[in-house]
Amino acid sequence: MPVSVVQTADGVRAALASRRGSGPIGLVPTMGALHAGHARLIEEARHECVTVAVSIFVNPLQFDRADDLARYSRPFEADLALCETLSVDVVFAPTAADMYPEPLDCTVHVGRTAEHLCGAFRPGHFNGVATVVLKLFNVVQPDVAYFGEKDAQQLAIIRRMVADLNVPVRIAPVATVREADGLALSSRNQHLNAAERALAPALFHALGVVRDAIAAGNADAAALKRQASESIPADGRLRLEYLELVDPWTFQPVDRVSGPVVAAGALWVGSTRLIDNIRCTPP
Amino acid sequence: MPVSVVQTADGVRAALASRRGSGPIGLVPTMGALHAGHARLIEEARHECVTVAVSIFVNPLQFDRADDLARYSRPFEADLALCETLSVDVVFAPTAADMYPEPLDCTVHVGRTAEHLCGAFRPGHFNGVATVVLKLFNVVQPDVAYFGEKDAQQLAIIRRMVADLNVPVRIAPVATVREADGLALSSRNQHLNAAERALAPALFHALGVVRDAIAAGNADAAALKRQASESIPADGRLRLEYLELVDPWTFQPVDRVSGPVVAAGALWVGSTRLIDNIRCTPP
Repeated sequence: MPVSVVQTADGVRAALASRRGSGPIGLVPTMGALHAGHARLIEEARHECVTVAVSIFVNPLQFDRADDLARYSRPFEADLALCETLSVDVVFAPTAADMYPEPLDCTVHVGRTAEHLCGAFRPGHFNGVATVVLKLFNVVQPDVAYFGEKDAQQLAIIRRMVADLNVPVRIAPVATVREADGLALSSRNQHLNAAERALAPALFHALGVVRDAIAAGNADAAALKRQASESIPADGRLRLEYLELVDPWTFQPVDRVSGPVVAAGALWVGSTRLIDNIRCTPP
Repeated sequence: MPVSVVQTADGVRAALASRRGSGPIGLVPTMGALHAGHARLIEEARHECVTVAVSIFVNPLQFDRADDLARYSRPFEADLALCETLSVDVVFAPTAADMYPEPLDCTVHVGRTAEHLCGAFRPGHFNGVATVVLKLFNVVQPDVAYFGEKDAQQLAIIRRMVADLNVPVRIAPVATVREADGLALSSRNQHLNAAERALAPALFHALGVVRDAIAAGNADAAALKRQASESIPADGRLRLEYLELVDPWTFQPVDRVSGPVVAAGALWVGSTRLIDNIRCTPP
């Protein structure tokens, strides 16, 4: 059966009405520009759910920079073809006017979980993410929603929102998909030229340095971060925005590693900002 | 069948699971201390829905003053008896620890709709209201939720939240229930002594002055508010906190009345704060 493409909240509810009750509905929220990382999320949903919905919506509310929003890739036909290939049942592709017929007055506000890492560098970003994800949940009313571990702080915030607001959706995390050289898949990778692409795995390698040092018993966060930072090639095109060790649930920075932590970083490669993270466990 | 009383979110979902699908579920969110105004809400739910749930929860998040929270009446047995009488199916009565096992990090933030009237005098109040109502909606997952028009700004904010966040719940407003002398029923009325009780209808009368003047063609908000204010007896026990004319949807004050408005006020009667409102329509 071909994928059903709907643009409005009412359309989604109508498309799903007959399927509700026949088994779990899975939602994969995306901003389009689908790649093998998204495909992994969809495959996981396909494996677990009777009905799979994918939302494709470049959410203006979560962009802190207009130029970033403007250049965000929107290859809708290719995205749709991938959804067909992966046997998605319903694609929800609203416009900004469908999602925001007027400026919102009620939004989700994220506290301490959004204080550090990307939250510190992208003001309002995670309020925008949490708000649109809650809207998508309320429109689709899925049983399960799939999020990539690549966006670790986003995943932590969505989990926190679900717990705090009693949202009746199970959050399923899916492991980051990487290129052979370790670079995490991202829609933003396509903006890299060949030289930048060659430099881009530096972030993953720096996080690996941290993981190995923690596994070897190093526990001092400042020393670990210095070590990671020094592992990044001295190249004018590379600028480390942050590299931090945080608690996996609260996303608060730790001074000493005494249990599992998330090592997370953001690296500018030319004019492209990449993020990545690894779970680290002390010996 | 006796009313089923449950304390946890899981308990509510279990109690409602078998009823879901057999017809609409109605929710009446309350803070207990039930009176004839709540009874009207429950009767309306009973009339329209197959299953009626009442939540009884004195929400600490929406109290801006600790003394107000401490003295808020909690006559649980009487509340339960009323629910039985009105054939309520499920009473959800969580503790604060059930609702807030840890401090929330993700909350609902209300913007302009909460700027004026009660929102201006009770900082954080409506964020707390919107957050707990969204939690209750997510726990009970009702088809319809019933709110009294007496709390007009609250009702406007809940409607706005439902629209903004695509919450799949219909909001049903229910007319204010009044005593013979016009005093709107409120759990707070029981704090009035006999002399205060005799003075308390002053707010409703002041709002009536505004309604009649608007119906007679007076459109200048400043003059209307002055007239209303002057109608309140000069008595040391009465203090008008605000009396305002606002747009029924945005709850922004109007300077001139050119369509339907809500006239809303808050009056301190001794140490008790009462609110009321009337819909006014120009000729």
